[in-house]
Amino acid sequence: MTDRDRKPPFRRGGGKPFDKGRTGSRPPFRGRDASSDGPAILYGWHTVSMALANPKRRFRKLLLTENAARRLAEENIATRITPDIVRPVEIDRLVSADAVHQGLYAEADPLPSPDLDTLPPDGLVLVLDQITDPHNVGAILRSAAAFAVKAIVTTARHSPEATGVLAKSASGALELVPLVTVQNLARALTALNERGFMTVGLDSEGNETLSAIDLHEPLALVLGAEGKGLRQLTRETCSAVARLDMPGEIKSLNVSNAAVLALYIGASRLGLMK
Amino acid sequence: MTDRDRKPPFRRGGGKPFDKGRTGSRPPFRGRDASSDGPAILYGWHTVSMALANPKRRFRKLLLTENAARRLAEENIATRITPDIVRPVEIDRLVSADAVHQGLYAEADPLPSPDLDTLPPDGLVLVLDQITDPHNVGAILRSAAAFAVKAIVTTARHSPEATGVLAKSASGALELVPLVTVQNLARALTALNERGFMTVGLDSEGNETLSAIDLHEPLALVLGAEGKGLRQLTRETCSAVARLDMPGEIKSLNVSNAAVLALYIGASRLGLMK
Repeated sequence: MTDRDRKPPFRRGGGKPFDKGRTGSRPPFRGRDASSDGPAILYGWHTVSMALANPKRRFRKLLLTENAARRLAEENIATRITPDIVRPVEIDRLVSADAVHQGLYAEADPLPSPDLDTLPPDGLVLVLDQITDPHNVGAILRSAAAFAVKAIVTTARHSPEATGVLAKSASGALELVPLVTVQNLARALTALNERGFMTVGLDSEGNETLSAIDLHEPLALVLGAEGKGLRQLTRETCSAVARLDMPGEIKSLNVSNAAVLALYIGASRLGLMK
Repeated sequence: MTDRDRKPPFRRGGGKPFDKGRTGSRPPFRGRDASSDGPAILYGWHTVSMALANPKRRFRKLLLTENAARRLAEENIATRITPDIVRPVEIDRLVSADAVHQGLYAEADPLPSPDLDTLPPDGLVLVLDQITDPHNVGAILRSAAAFAVKAIVTTARHSPEATGVLAKSASGALELVPLVTVQNLARALTALNERGFMTVGLDSEGNETLSAIDLHEPLALVLGAEGKGLRQLTRETCSAVARLDMPGEIKSLNVSNAAVLALYIGASRLGLMK
């Protein structure tokens, strides 16, 4: 098969794959790790207003329409730096044609990635194994914030940066859920196992269903990319591999849909739903 | 506020809103109803191979790369019409730049929309109130097929057509879950109520949680667009309005994430999970 044919079957049209046809000449991937010093691009009401409310965010630039500035003032959200008051069309020029910015655009420092060993030894964390689509990762962040997830562990390579479409899809959740960026996912899972985490990989070929497993805290739920699934070493390093229960003809979900279902089942079983 | 500022806060960057800035001069919406005679554009392995396996699909055109043709032959999937064997780049030209077509492209007749009164009086249906993003509607279709949903009811206007990105995101589920297109959603809900359906609207402001409600078959779960939510008349016509239980700081999910969670809770409570 050609490279074109070999692409994972489920990859969403909306996300630019990082390996599109390239093999030898792939450009270096810029993750959220120390080597990335570009700003985080934030736009949209929830994304920018929650970043303004996060004391850890350092802003470099803030563009607001008059309406957006007034709305922030009405909701008592301080702008932190002096905004440039602009017409909507000036923000239009900075974002993609179909981006809904609602009159707010900011450039800020990326948030620091905490160390894995700072994770609290309770509750729920999510681990993402090379999920590349920024819409999906953004939706997963948002669901993680909804289920009080303590952190999301991702790889420095083959993960989208915490900016732009991802930040918009996360709808403010970037400010709530720490992203722990690691170089080597299997090593990170081993470290979690050693610290007493139960690490459960989700895989449609898993022998048991997630709801049949005796889950305990701290729990790490591990999700792979659509099409590719969990990499072999990831799967082997998990303390258990489980599938999601589905009664219909299709046995695999969009990855952000799988994530929210796993979170709901995990949080319910751990008694975290209050 | 300007039109630009007033756009719903959660609309995903990847989807072109239908009402972008236009009010007086909005072009007529082309739904899947009788007025739409354009072909359904299908690409990608699951989307095309499952359409080929659906005897109800009538194909107008089929383009395959040699590799894709060989893979169909290996899996004993008949092509139904004589395919044009093409190089991948010829399909590239027909789809958007980031579409993952995997060497399969088809144009087919849209599937017929069944009448509302043909729905079986058991199980689970989904009702979508003007959800416009084709990625989200596609992911919802895929989850619906995973949870053996009997049908999805959508409005003829303000719903994306069952083609292209939607079909790709549905990953073959278009062939499994009938789409019932109605002109007036409140009237359709009234008809479902009269036929004994329990119609439950999902709304983050709902008084009760979905899992606290005594659900019964046949059950229709009703979802609104992100940002806008359920329209008032939709909400008033539902037999109950419920929220999803979420313990974290963010209380609303991406709409396809909300849909899969509602489906899981609904199917579990109705005993449909085997």
